[in-house]
Amino acid sequence: MAVVVNSRANYARIKSLLKSIELRPELKLELVLGASSLISRHGNLEAVIMKDGLTPSARVNTIVEGDSPSAMATSTGLGVIELASLFENMKPDIVLTVADRFETLATALAASYMNIAVAHTQGGELTGSIDESVRHAVTKLSHYHFPATKKSAERLIAMGENPDKILMSGCPSLDLVREVANWDVNTLGHSLPGVGPGIDFDKPYFLVLQHPVTTEWGNAAEQISGTIEAISSLGVQSVWLWPNVDAGADIFSRELRRAREGGRLPKVQFVKNLPPEDYLILLKNCHCIIGNSSSAIREASFLAVPAVNVGTRQLNRERSSNVVDVGYESNQIIEAIKNLNDARGKIERSDLYGDGYAGERIADFLSGPTPHYQKEFYVWQSE
Amino acid sequence: MAVVVNSRANYARIKSLLKSIELRPELKLELVLGASSLISRHGNLEAVIMKDGLTPSARVNTIVEGDSPSAMATSTGLGVIELASLFENMKPDIVLTVADRFETLATALAASYMNIAVAHTQGGELTGSIDESVRHAVTKLSHYHFPATKKSAERLIAMGENPDKILMSGCPSLDLVREVANWDVNTLGHSLPGVGPGIDFDKPYFLVLQHPVTTEWGNAAEQISGTIEAISSLGVQSVWLWPNVDAGADIFSRELRRAREGGRLPKVQFVKNLPPEDYLILLKNCHCIIGNSSSAIREASFLAVPAVNVGTRQLNRERSSNVVDVGYESNQIIEAIKNLNDARGKIERSDLYGDGYAGERIADFLSGPTPHYQKEFYVWQSE
Amino acid sequence: MAVVVNSRANYARIKSLLKSIELRPELKLELVLGASSLISRHGNLEAVIMKDGLTPSARVNTIVEGDSPSAMATSTGLGVIELASLFENMKPDIVLTVADRFETLATALAASYMNIAVAHTQGGELTGSIDESVRHAVTKLSHYHFPATKKSAERLIAMGENPDKILMSGCPSLDLVREVANWDVNTLGHSLPGVGPGIDFDKPYFLVLQHPVTTEWGNAAEQISGTIEAISSLGVQSVWLWPNVDAGADIFSRELRRAREGGRLPKVQFVKNLPPEDYLILLKNCHCIIGNSSSAIREASFLAVPAVNVGTRQLNRERSSNVVDVGYESNQIIEAIKNLNDARGKIERSDLYGDGYAGERIADFLSGPTPHYQKEFYVWQSE
Amino acid sequence: MAVVVNSRANYARIKSLLKSIELRPELKLELVLGASSLISRHGNLEAVIMKDGLTPSARVNTIVEGDSPSAMATSTGLGVIELASLFENMKPDIVLTVADRFETLATALAASYMNIAVAHTQGGELTGSIDESVRHAVTKLSHYHFPATKKSAERLIAMGENPDKILMSGCPSLDLVREVANWDVNTLGHSLPGVGPGIDFDKPYFLVLQHPVTTEWGNAAEQISGTIEAISSLGVQSVWLWPNVDAGADIFSRELRRAREGGRLPKVQFVKNLPPEDYLILLKNCHCIIGNSSSAIREASFLAVPAVNVGTRQLNRERSSNVVDVGYESNQIIEAIKNLNDARGKIERSDLYGDGYAGERIADFLSGPTPHYQKEFYVWQSE
Repeated sequence: MAVVVNSRANYARIKSLLKSIELRPELKLELVLGASSLISRHGNLEAVIMKDGLTPSARVNTIVEGDSPSAMATSTGLGVIELASLFENMKPDIVLTVADRFETLATALAASYMNIAVAHTQGGELTGSIDESVRHAVTKLSHYHFPATKKSAERLIAMGENPDKILMSGCPSLDLVREVANWDVNTLGHSLPGVGPGIDFDKPYFLVLQHPVTTEWGNAAEQISGTIEAISSLGVQSVWLWPNVDAGADIFSRELRRAREGGRLPKVQFVKNLPPEDYLILLKNCHCIIGNSSSAIREASFLAVPAVNVGTRQLNRERSSNVVDVGYESNQIIEAIKNLNDARGKIERSDLYGDGYAGERIADFLSGPTPHYQKEFYVWQSE
Repeated sequence: MAVVVNSRANYARIKSLLKSIELRPELKLELVLGASSLISRHGNLEAVIMKDGLTPSARVNTIVEGDSPSAMATSTGLGVIELASLFENMKPDIVLTVADRFETLATALAASYMNIAVAHTQGGELTGSIDESVRHAVTKLSHYHFPATKKSAERLIAMGENPDKILMSGCPSLDLVREVANWDVNTLGHSLPGVGPGIDFDKPYFLVLQHPVTTEWGNAAEQISGTIEAISSLGVQSVWLWPNVDAGADIFSRELRRAREGGRLPKVQFVKNLPPEDYLILLKNCHCIIGNSSSAIREASFLAVPAVNVGTRQLNRERSSNVVDVGYESNQIIEAIKNLNDARGKIERSDLYGDGYAGERIADFLSGPTPHYQKEFYVWQSE
Repeated sequence: MAVVVNSRANYARIKSLLKSIELRPELKLELVLGASSLISRHGNLEAVIMKDGLTPSARVNTIVEGDSPSAMATSTGLGVIELASLFENMKPDIVLTVADRFETLATALAASYMNIAVAHTQGGELTGSIDESVRHAVTKLSHYHFPATKKSAERLIAMGENPDKILMSGCPSLDLVREVANWDVNTLGHSLPGVGPGIDFDKPYFLVLQHPVTTEWGNAAEQISGTIEAISSLGVQSVWLWPNVDAGADIFSRELRRAREGGRLPKVQFVKNLPPEDYLILLKNCHCIIGNSSSAIREASFLAVPAVNVGTRQLNRERSSNVVDVGYESNQIIEAIKNLNDARGKIERSDLYGDGYAGERIADFLSGPTPHYQKEFYVWQSE
Repeated sequence: MAVVVNSRANYARIKSLLKSIELRPELKLELVLGASSLISRHGNLEAVIMKDGLTPSARVNTIVEGDSPSAMATSTGLGVIELASLFENMKPDIVLTVADRFETLATALAASYMNIAVAHTQGGELTGSIDESVRHAVTKLSHYHFPATKKSAERLIAMGENPDKILMSGCPSLDLVREVANWDVNTLGHSLPGVGPGIDFDKPYFLVLQHPVTTEWGNAAEQISGTIEAISSLGVQSVWLWPNVDAGADIFSRELRRAREGGRLPKVQFVKNLPPEDYLILLKNCHCIIGNSSSAIREASFLAVPAVNVGTRQLNRERSSNVVDVGYESNQIIEAIKNLNDARGKIERSDLYGDGYAGERIADFLSGPTPHYQKEFYVWQSE
């Protein structure tokens, strides 16, 4: 079976499964690296993967540069072409595709036109952006489903997917979270990469991660300015992670560079790429996470870390009690962070997105018989 | 708004809507021709369209030749690339995409990544092949839905589409059917194109149309041999239409050529392309339609024409009482045709797929406010 | 080393070399099939190749359908993308590309951007169409050159190619010609495929092969009508081969079908695909070859067969005394054929395009050291 | 006529011509922006162009991200596809393509397959990398040639181009140089963008610009380390410009960032993008230019600025007396710079690459009759 990994985030969300597949002799793993996983300015993911004991079988360059929505569409088209060629030579019986980005859809589309069974993780979730539409479209092209939550699984059934092909596995990303949850933050101490003054882990720090919301494309600068102002004005040391490659990302980068070079973020360490483990340690130990990363809702709930969720990107995502939602304005963000001072420590760990054993469950399921690629709409009530 | 027409069949399914859009000053039509609509060996569709008073705004070559599933995937990828470029210059507010072929998905995908609202006709239907998966994936990328049947509309809601954005319009193809239903078959008499002995319209004739089933790719020759044998052995004059461009189509063509050149189909007129109107007149007046065309289920039910449906291609499609289902074996096909002799004339006209006024209804709906391209999963029951 | 074969004609022009490579243990052949070599309606070339004892390593679908110049450009672009992916995984040290079609350029371009040495056959020839420009562009991207004629080799040097990297090998297509030159035409007798009355090989017959001239695109119908009329009016039995896939080919096909169905070509056997050997036997034994095939100039000169060359397609190609040039009008064609009656038999065999041992020579040369992919302009006179 | 501009450097090399075209009513300019000209992290070229009074007609995203040679090939393929679509709708009579990058070839290739005349600037030059092969390949696909030097023009004729279609115009980039040659460097003073301590223009400064040499791909880190060390050790204030997007560029960026962040380049101002005029003022006034930019050979010779040319990138380029060639080692670079102290001021201005009036000359030529797209090999000596 082929697994297509397109980014560092992808890898974190599938790593435990990859390892579980490698341990099963009946499953033959072909790891394909694509999209931003191949771009060295996003960090050398291949080296990380090799260090984890996995060897990529193939690489496909699929990202078309450009800060416009059409570049994203063009990337998807190019991905389909490249992956169709690859699958024709590789001839996998199953292709596993992760989550909801454009490469996810390109992968599902190439495989399903080539009569290859598609397995999909994290289907059925509601998130409120183009990613959600893409995620559901991938579901309708997929044969195996590994949703993370109970409600997601129910939605897949409502959408006509066969319950026999759905395994509510939890998200494999939490397997990694479970493993590293108790690592010591000081292991990061002096090695935190990037630009800035560094972080004193004996004091509270914020973790900031905000991506452009592509369906609001055109307002990217406004989306990020409130967060910049809030972090600037609170003056608390912070780790700020650069956003994903995406329409609008170039504008975010520019705004962040301006703020940094203008001296407005003197206590911020800007970090481009982190091994998933380091990210999780940072998340586990931060005072709170700010921005619109899904990890603030998913991983942070498992870790009982408070989250200030900015804007609409996570609008409809299922959430646990660790999340406070605010708009893009700086004063809302500031107030929410201040209120957290009472909440920190009282938040309870949640298994909403998984219990930390998803990878094994999925690998077990995939060891069973391969489904025929011919799908049938599942009618779960009398029509 | 842009409408992408990819084949003669596409055009027949959208023509009445195009004309209704042209009549509304508040809607600006940009007609895009793609895929097989541009390939002259499939007939000059552009000339037909011009004769109907419509002028294409742009053309995109998107079909990659080749008789393998990867060619279909590659075509989809190329379609996304070409359409993304086109939409970037054209900047339509809405893109309408028709039915369920690979170009349909390419269109929806390019538009939705570019934050353009997608309108989709014929969503929600069950048909039992890769087309069905693609149709549902297109649904999940679309903002406006114009399903043809009540059950299709219900399925769209179950899949999370907002009922306010769904108009159960009926299929626009039936608008054309309604118009030409009473034209005289003898107008076709001496002008029937193609290769063969011609048809005597004063006597009964069969209409045959069978496409390869792509998810059974590899058995294309077997899929068509029973039908060839049945038609050969019954010895009734027949009009046989060539199959679509699709994986497997080249094999079908080869088998048909062999049978023809081997003298096994002396009473068959082979026709490559027909204006939609001529096809409908042929359908209206035939003794029965044989094969696996959806028109045998949709248009033929509206016209009260008996249909012998061969194989799995239409497995799950909603059907009216005009349809008899058989397997690929010649004896099953022969028996079903013989049994029809009693049924012909007793079949009742059905509005299952529309009442013949879909185009106007859809154009009215599209004249309303454009939906925001940000979709939200519709929860139709308490979760 | 990888060799990319894109059509039946390509294969005939490289087959003896492929066999010579296979016989040398120091050369590892990776045979890539692309473009029209994969399209079954052009005949199953893969089966022919397998029968010849060669096994393709990979296949790439690169032909975009469409009867317009932009489809040809799009095919080239798609070819570059597909071949770049392929070469990245295959990692050949040398890529050999044949002659002058769009796939030839796509191959040279993908390889040269990937720092792979490019070897090119048939460079330096003058032919008078877009193919010539493409051929010279391929030369400027290539590292090894295997021109067929002395003048071609001199032109390569004038264009700045290093004489050390040029081997005037003759064209490998003539190796095959040499081998089959004396086979008996009657072996073809009853097995000639296609549509028509067959050929009586005891009587004189014509061989007709005419391709659309793409830089005169738009006049395709006029290009072929004179030839149709000439063959029709002379009433001599003829074998007519269908044209290549190319802009304009669909129009040629249509004109030929009309003439055939209109009863104007009753003595013509229409043939779509022929094994190269069968073609050569037909050529060797025909009364004359008519049209604009390069084989009328190249292979026919080696075989001492008279040729009536129609129109501009071969305008500047070096030719031997077997060729008579005429325009597109039927009367010119008829007159030239009539005049041949005196010439047949007096024509002398020419080695202008090779002596029939090119494949071995090239394989010997390729067994030497691989050139560094960094080229340098060869200055052959003091500047 | 369409002009495709793919980067800031492209624009500088064609700007005077664009303005001359705009001034001629008989020429209709359609300006197409592609490749890195659209990528905001390379600066907003479109804004610069608009400020210059020109309005782009279309944009095409063609750069595939990735730090490997296959990404460059894939970009070329994608460029051909996108430009073929564009030209099909735009229908220009002439397409002008600039210099020698992959987009240049994509442009020439798309146009020439679509029977559009191609005009090419800067053909015939020798430079010693894949760019040179591409430049010559573009020449063989082009109909009009505007070489910059006498020897280049002679080479075009040797390569078979018709002297009637060749205008030895000089390079349009020098038109701009002529205009800005006497602007005051202090206008740049406080506005020099980028990261670093700024430059004191009352004191000598170096200008550094070095690109990865792609045919030596794999050694990118070694290519840049000597230059970094030389600049670090000399301790003279310097302006360092980031390299082009190209295979290897990401590695260069990483090395530069490391050196900067490691405190090894404290007197260096790192600049990403500059308006062409500002670059020329910097060049005009610098103590010397170091690296492998062609501007060190071309523009600098016109400006009588000394140049230390590092490595093989400009190996074969025609040069004037302002250039000293060195290898990649730091000591060679240091020594050459030290030796310059004697040379500065004694260097003479050269018209080798143009006299500063190329744009007008080319526009005059293009106002003449459009050549037929059918080319013919020019035989300049008796064969």
